[in-house]
Amino acid sequence: MKEINNKDIDPESLYPHDLANLANKKLEELADGYRDIPRELERPIRYCLLSGGKRIRPVLAMAAAASLGRDPEYVLPAACAIEFIHSYSLIHDDLPAIDDDDLRRGKPSCHRKFGEDIAILTGDALFAEAFSIILREQQGTPHRLIQAMREITEASGASGMVAGQVTDVSSSRHRMSRQSLEKMHTNKTARLIAASITASAILCGAEKKVLEKYREYGMNTGLAFQITDDILDITSSSMVTGKTAGKDKKQAKNTYPLLWGIEQSKKIAADKIHKALEVLEQSGTDNLLMKNIAQFILIRRS
Amino acid sequence: MKEINNKDIDPESLYPHDLANLANKKLEELADGYRDIPRELERPIRYCLLSGGKRIRPVLAMAAAASLGRDPEYVLPAACAIEFIHSYSLIHDDLPAIDDDDLRRGKPSCHRKFGEDIAILTGDALFAEAFSIILREQQGTPHRLIQAMREITEASGASGMVAGQVTDVSSSRHRMSRQSLEKMHTNKTARLIAASITASAILCGAEKKVLEKYREYGMNTGLAFQITDDILDITSSSMVTGKTAGKDKKQAKNTYPLLWGIEQSKKIAADKIHKALEVLEQSGTDNLLMKNIAQFILIRRS
Repeated sequence: MKEINNKDIDPESLYPHDLANLANKKLEELADGYRDIPRELERPIRYCLLSGGKRIRPVLAMAAAASLGRDPEYVLPAACAIEFIHSYSLIHDDLPAIDDDDLRRGKPSCHRKFGEDIAILTGDALFAEAFSIILREQQGTPHRLIQAMREITEASGASGMVAGQVTDVSSSRHRMSRQSLEKMHTNKTARLIAASITASAILCGAEKKVLEKYREYGMNTGLAFQITDDILDITSSSMVTGKTAGKDKKQAKNTYPLLWGIEQSKKIAADKIHKALEVLEQSGTDNLLMKNIAQFILIRRS
Repeated sequence: MKEINNKDIDPESLYPHDLANLANKKLEELADGYRDIPRELERPIRYCLLSGGKRIRPVLAMAAAASLGRDPEYVLPAACAIEFIHSYSLIHDDLPAIDDDDLRRGKPSCHRKFGEDIAILTGDALFAEAFSIILREQQGTPHRLIQAMREITEASGASGMVAGQVTDVSSSRHRMSRQSLEKMHTNKTARLIAASITASAILCGAEKKVLEKYREYGMNTGLAFQITDDILDITSSSMVTGKTAGKDKKQAKNTYPLLWGIEQSKKIAADKIHKALEVLEQSGTDNLLMKNIAQFILIRRS
């Protein structure tokens, strides 16, 4: 396998920005669909949804579709629905009662801009709308739609993303074991990232063997994504990440770099990406985009 | 039509407590399914989900199924999923940043018992789990499942329940017109109540004409439910309602009785229930339970 931590590669050259642009365009179209709701809700929905970001979840969903010979746009509604869920989770995470973060993607976080009540409700709305979008716009047989939605709800719910978040708020200032930390990050981040890929693959009619390989790819890239995020929290300035830098340390959060140091964490992330590339190879699909995204996750600078 | 505001009728005799018991039993079974998630999340889920209440949404869903010749238990998973959504909405409504309510169903509200962070996340978890339950447990053709879920997500989302809640928090201390107030309550309460009935009817294969009558029944009983709720907020003690009595007035909320007085509000509620009974009659189904529930809503004492 080629050395992927190569300093000569520009990370951005590995990222399919055309797919991110497709997601951005569709997200704008979806945001335009909320012109008839109360202005007090439409404004924060637009603000949070269209504030940029890498769109890694929809991009992964579209890359998975492409790897299965589909037009990436085929899964665009489901891909954007997952971005709605991600956006809702960021809004709630930033709330004063949870991470208390003033900055998100370089701008005031939702509650700083619109108030805490509106931020809670905007998150709630985005979560509901995610399902509405899939039910209203996503093509596919009803059976596949249902299977795809199961992937997404189970990744988001009480044994997925929310479980991870609850462990996170409950374990600050207690040092976790590596196993517990990995479980927390799996729930908090990796499962929804994996669901972006598996839901898309289901919609595209992937066979079971491919689906299981894609799930493993998703879990590994998802964990690597969380680890590199936590490294960037330490090594980057707020200007680069658009988030309040050094926040994890101040809040005594359990993260890989804070528990085991930056070098060891980089090694763990690289191992995860190697594993992701390995299972991708085994899937036998035409998955260059997915390969590139995994490498991007490892060497990204923001 | 018989006079329904009859003081001789015991409201409780009109309510199908056997259906509420079915819902309670199923909710307990569902809550038992969360033994493997973090204890910090399992406890508030149980606490909030199993804290009693009339279970009017699942009861209406089951009554609709019975009216269409189905075993009420056929729609039990979807019926309980809607109770999950209702429970999530109560948890978020009670938060300090929204209604700031210390009491719910006679006990400390979720954030008073478990903290604000856990309350936000418990609401989020219940919302996701609602969809997981339908996707995992509800019988029906995939096509009907998708249609039923659309009813539920659209009633809960940015143009439904959340829109109503946003208008509510944004309009306190501004006197609303009757039309705006009705729209707010339609969004906040009536649409999810109506969705309980229409989603159930869709799952049971109701024809389009029946579905539209049931939707109208649901919207009218839903509005009447909100109006009688606001009347009880004024006329009942906390001991009877299990909520902080007189809260609406203190928060200068827009409600029917605070804007137009109790007598006029009772009349509006009675009109809504008359309308509900009228469309029910037109549906031509065998709907005695639904008739009784509508009457119960009007004359209930808690």
